Amino acid sequence: MVANTALLTAVSVLSLTAAQTFQRLGGCPTLGCVLPPDQTDFLAGQYFDIRLEVHAPVNGSEANGGVPDTNFVFTIAKKDGGPQPAATFFKVAEPALETWNFTWFEDLFAQELKQPSLVQVASKAYRRVALYEPGEYAATLTYYNGTNTTANWLVRPIQQQKKAKNVILFIGDGMTTNMITAARLIGHKSINGKYQSRMQMDKFPVLGHQMTHSLDSYMTDSANSASALYSGHKSTVNAMGVYADSSADAFDDPKVETIVELLTRIWGCAIGVVSTAFLADATPIALTGHTRTRAAYAPLIDQSLRGVQNYTWTNYTGADVFFGAGAEQFYPGTTSYQGKDYYQEYANAGYSVSLNKTSLLSVPNTQKALGVFSTSSLPVWLDRNVYKNYLNTTTNHPSGNKEPALDLPGLKEMTLKAIDILHERGGEKGFFMMSEAASIDKQMHALDYDRALGDLLELDDTVKATIEKLTQMGLINDTLIIVTADHGHGFDVYGSADTKYLASKSSDREKRNAIGIYQNSGLSQYTVPNASVSYDTGVNFPVNWDPRYTLAQGVGAMPDHRENYRVHKDAPRLAATNITGKPIDDFYANPKDNPDGILVNGTLPTHEAQGVHSLTDVPVFAMGPCQELFAGVYGNIDVFFNMANCLGLGRPDDKPGVLGASGSGSGPVATSASADPVTRTQRGMWFGMLVFMRSIGWVALNL
Amino acid sequence: MVANTALLTAVSVLSLTAAQTFQRLGGCPTLGCVLPPDQTDFLAGQYFDIRLEVHAPVNGSEANGGVPDTNFVFTIAKKDGGPQPAATFFKVAEPALETWNFTWFEDLFAQELKQPSLVQVASKAYRRVALYEPGEYAATLTYYNGTNTTANWLVRPIQQQKKAKNVILFIGDGMTTNMITAARLIGHKSINGKYQSRMQMDKFPVLGHQMTHSLDSYMTDSANSASALYSGHKSTVNAMGVYADSSADAFDDPKVETIVELLTRIWGCAIGVVSTAFLADATPIALTGHTRTRAAYAPLIDQSLRGVQNYTWTNYTGADVFFGAGAEQFYPGTTSYQGKDYYQEYANAGYSVSLNKTSLLSVPNTQKALGVFSTSSLPVWLDRNVYKNYLNTTTNHPSGNKEPALDLPGLKEMTLKAIDILHERGGEKGFFMMSEAASIDKQMHALDYDRALGDLLELDDTVKATIEKLTQMGLINDTLIIVTADHGHGFDVYGSADTKYLASKSSDREKRNAIGIYQNSGLSQYTVPNASVSYDTGVNFPVNWDPRYTLAQGVGAMPDHRENYRVHKDAPRLAATNITGKPIDDFYANPKDNPDGILVNGTLPTHEAQGVHSLTDVPVFAMGPCQELFAGVYGNIDVFFNMANCLGLGRPDDKPGVLGASGSGSGPVATSASADPVTRTQRGMWFGMLVFMRSIGWVALNL
Repeated sequence: MVANTALLTAVSVLSLTAAQTFQRLGGCPTLGCVLPPDQTDFLAGQYFDIRLEVHAPVNGSEANGGVPDTNFVFTIAKKDGGPQPAATFFKVAEPALETWNFTWFEDLFAQELKQPSLVQVASKAYRRVALYEPGEYAATLTYYNGTNTTANWLVRPIQQQKKAKNVILFIGDGMTTNMITAARLIGHKSINGKYQSRMQMDKFPVLGHQMTHSLDSYMTDSANSASALYSGHKSTVNAMGVYADSSADAFDDPKVETIVELLTRIWGCAIGVVSTAFLADATPIALTGHTRTRAAYAPLIDQSLRGVQNYTWTNYTGADVFFGAGAEQFYPGTTSYQGKDYYQEYANAGYSVSLNKTSLLSVPNTQKALGVFSTSSLPVWLDRNVYKNYLNTTTNHPSGNKEPALDLPGLKEMTLKAIDILHERGGEKGFFMMSEAASIDKQMHALDYDRALGDLLELDDTVKATIEKLTQMGLINDTLIIVTADHGHGFDVYGSADTKYLASKSSDREKRNAIGIYQNSGLSQYTVPNASVSYDTGVNFPVNWDPRYTLAQGVGAMPDHRENYRVHKDAPRLAATNITGKPIDDFYANPKDNPDGILVNGTLPTHEAQGVHSLTDVPVFAMGPCQELFAGVYGNIDVFFNMANCLGLGRPDDKPGVLGASGSGSGPVATSASADPVTRTQRGMWFGMLVFMRSIGWVALNL
Repeated sequence: MVANTALLTAVSVLSLTAAQTFQRLGGCPTLGCVLPPDQTDFLAGQYFDIRLEVHAPVNGSEANGGVPDTNFVFTIAKKDGGPQPAATFFKVAEPALETWNFTWFEDLFAQELKQPSLVQVASKAYRRVALYEPGEYAATLTYYNGTNTTANWLVRPIQQQKKAKNVILFIGDGMTTNMITAARLIGHKSINGKYQSRMQMDKFPVLGHQMTHSLDSYMTDSANSASALYSGHKSTVNAMGVYADSSADAFDDPKVETIVELLTRIWGCAIGVVSTAFLADATPIALTGHTRTRAAYAPLIDQSLRGVQNYTWTNYTGADVFFGAGAEQFYPGTTSYQGKDYYQEYANAGYSVSLNKTSLLSVPNTQKALGVFSTSSLPVWLDRNVYKNYLNTTTNHPSGNKEPALDLPGLKEMTLKAIDILHERGGEKGFFMMSEAASIDKQMHALDYDRALGDLLELDDTVKATIEKLTQMGLINDTLIIVTADHGHGFDVYGSADTKYLASKSSDREKRNAIGIYQNSGLSQYTVPNASVSYDTGVNFPVNWDPRYTLAQGVGAMPDHRENYRVHKDAPRLAATNITGKPIDDFYANPKDNPDGILVNGTLPTHEAQGVHSLTDVPVFAMGPCQELFAGVYGNIDVFFNMANCLGLGRPDDKPGVLGASGSGSGPVATSASADPVTRTQRGMWFGMLVFMRSIGWVALNL
């Protein structure tokens, strides 16, 4: 935001300085808020909503009397043009005024003293508008007798030509270059420093890095990073497909159109969503979800089938392929939307429904397909392929019958089947698929490095199999394949651990001398055959997950925990537990986890039981049409804009695309009419219980 | 190595399994050793030595009687050709037999019990040979009545055409993508997630990743990683320009020709070496150094001026530019080679000699130039530009007079002056320069993240200024610029720290709640102007190094230490100290470092006072001629092969190159004559004291 008065500048600096751990509202450092905020980029023709807020703090460092200006004015000006009232500019009716209040804490001291700041708000929202003419715009909110907040917007060039028939976007959730390096080391044999085989990702011709900085925080989560990748709009933690506003309703925040919605509207492509997470989890659901509250799982699953219902938006009637886990939102009960049976809802909409691998592999390629293979997230590759006993202890059957789910597909099986369906259903229009290796992230959170790296190797194996399949199908030259991540974890390998020596010592300081660094790290023992071990897991996976000399590996951000550097054979790791027995979370090293390990005290708040995301840029591997767009360093939103460019989604009007039509010339400059908001659904109230999270922070669980 | 008998295979697996923390000899898993070992790649025409060893363990798991076979036979066979005795193949005299013995520990238990294994050795060395014909070779050592060890060698294609006039190789020592991300965050302002300026590296058109796996360990150091970058040959920790053998002499190990030696021999280019480290440090000195003992600083400085003297090798008479620190090896005394005055030795060889920035900027561009600006490494950017009081406490004057060095250049001043000299002296032949930001690594070792990131920003500023200067000089299109690293550290940022809240709490667990994660990380406060702070350090550096809300950052590999997440204003950080007072190193958190911080207990051996290197692939940024070669993922040796390709260094004969001559055709296939070894100098004995390090490991200090 550009604050145009000296007064506002002072306030702005004050609030920037004070508001760090907590913020009054992301994207709104001044008392006047324009969402989408300053520095937003738009795809030409992309639908979005606008939310204006005028804040009147009642108390706290910004207190101004607590009466918000309800006579605020909002104008849009194209560069070198005069400002027009927004309703005129967008040819829509002036929206109704809304008012509410909210509270927040100015810092940790205020939180500790239980002294929240109260803010009164006056607001308006413009629904489903678009900017069709490329260039720079100034969106200016005027309030409090002439104070201005200007959001400078940029509409990217029109790109109407569809250059790739298909796009496959693989997301290794939380995957960093460091993890790829470690996975290569345990899955691929090297001799005298030269690898004898390579990761499939290593063979991609183009490499880039994407910067994951969020709208209001340099640390992102999987919801708002997914939105950046899917819509070109950064958001705030927990938000997807919207800019988070301060109202109570988590489903009235200003929306942005996603790549799936654009592709459906413009080209009618087939759409595939595949994930090893529960399908309501951020990365898969952000393709269609619009809420600032990612934990609103049940209504998000409804949106995945029916699209946005509570405001006029683009029509969306479900993906062609929807494969993953999270049966809790599908079988009828307290965790499904309005208690309904979403297996039945999907079936009613014409979907085949698979609840196990056998069924998955046999469903027709001509029909839309839902596959839900377990509750929660799918068991990870290591448990499905190596330490299988754990599966028998689970209660994750997708029927909800509390039996174990044992007939389970992996990412590869789901992805390859998805390609068959998408190719069949997309026809000449092609397809878009997002395929997510979710538990790289989930197991890194748990400090279960072996399980994380196993799922990374499964992702790479899936990419390899995908390329082979597309080659066989004759589609490889028509398909843009991207492999990237949404954010990182600060993981790295720093040596080897002689686990025998470590276990033989009794004190932490003696145990630490088991770590070999530099030349004492030696070579990967995960690739050395051991006659007593055979997993039959195929090439390019470790032949021994439990060698004497393991990787010494870890993160810089952690709860209290113990490390013995050995694989966890019985079940996924639980590094820290709340041993106090008090209801308030207060985590210590889990006494049952690696009792023979080295105690490492944490560097995170004591209410965190897991590791957290990190800042690092993440890699982007690209091959196929438009691959050259993905070289170098750029923002995560550019992944969207590059895909949109390659898919011809930047449009001068709101008409569908015509395959084979040439050109990306600057078409007629039109601004679309926006429809008035329709009635809000009960979603907002259903999730009133979740709203309080925004003022008290939230509990990190597999973000 | 490929072991061709069942017996040897069994032994090989045994030694691979047993030898992890310590190894009998890197690159030699069997009892017969060929150096260069299996899987070595060569540049066509590159000089190298060959070392053969037959090992006879007296005791330990491999004991075979302790009598090495002195009648071993060594042959070379080009693929599809018959084997020839090596002396015949290379047209050299049969080398003399050598014998010695050495000891090593099979594992930590053996070390603890002080039970070394003794190995008797029979050996030969072929000196200064070359392979001129591209393709595959089998180098086979036959010993112990028919046991074979075969090294499969690959000679890369001939590339004779010089496509780039100049090459500038910037090395950020220890620099990772994670650190670049953090440096961008503190040096570049962002608004709502969009950076308003970018790192110069971010603007490079081509990005790659290089894999840093060493010859005998997956963890590398700056010596053998430098050799990989400079010669295309991986080696072992502490070794540069050689494959480490097991003999006592640290200067008789088999050598490989470096890019600087090749360029001097083939094109006569001007050569520049610039570093913020002491010039005898691994990264600058590995351009000309050939030893397995990087700590042999004094003789390495002699090699930098005179080249290799103790064996027939290529002529080398010093770089055109040699700028850095490490005056201890230059002023006469106990730390200079043979007590000589290397300022005078260089001056006698025609060099201008600068000992401060004022002098540096005024030396003629026509003359070879030595610049040594302090003892040890140069004070870092943060101390030279922000917290300058520290400089007055130093005793680092390059004269050795124990006064502070205050008239100090930075990496940018050294690099820009170097370009002037190199352009003048290189003329039509062009130049090669390596410019190193050394203290990214050194300060990461010290867990002094602010100083490390400051030097990373200085590197980026230097790259930016270099591009501007080359553009002004009309050289930008003729110059390949590479920015990369030699290895990483497992560093990342994971949130923010409210340092005021942290300091206000008394217990570690309360202090930890000062860490803000995800949305509570907020925005970078390093870019928010503070009226009370002004450093005048130019654009794209932090405007406030000491904000209330700092980066929460760290590593997974560490000694015991305390974190308060604040900049260390008084001096570079000393995180851990030997508080026991015993002569044996036993490090605990330094009680004087961040006494108000959170205690984090270590994950490294207790004899380590610093952080260590990590596994991660490191980024490569490239622009200019041949930039396309640097896309994707490849080995660190490919950085050398790509530069050599671009510089036309792959030759079919040992003749100098002719500028303007076309073609890279397969010229006449010749094998050069090797000269016999000349007398060994006293270097080996001078460093006998250092040899014991190989069996007991070494102390990590700024590797």
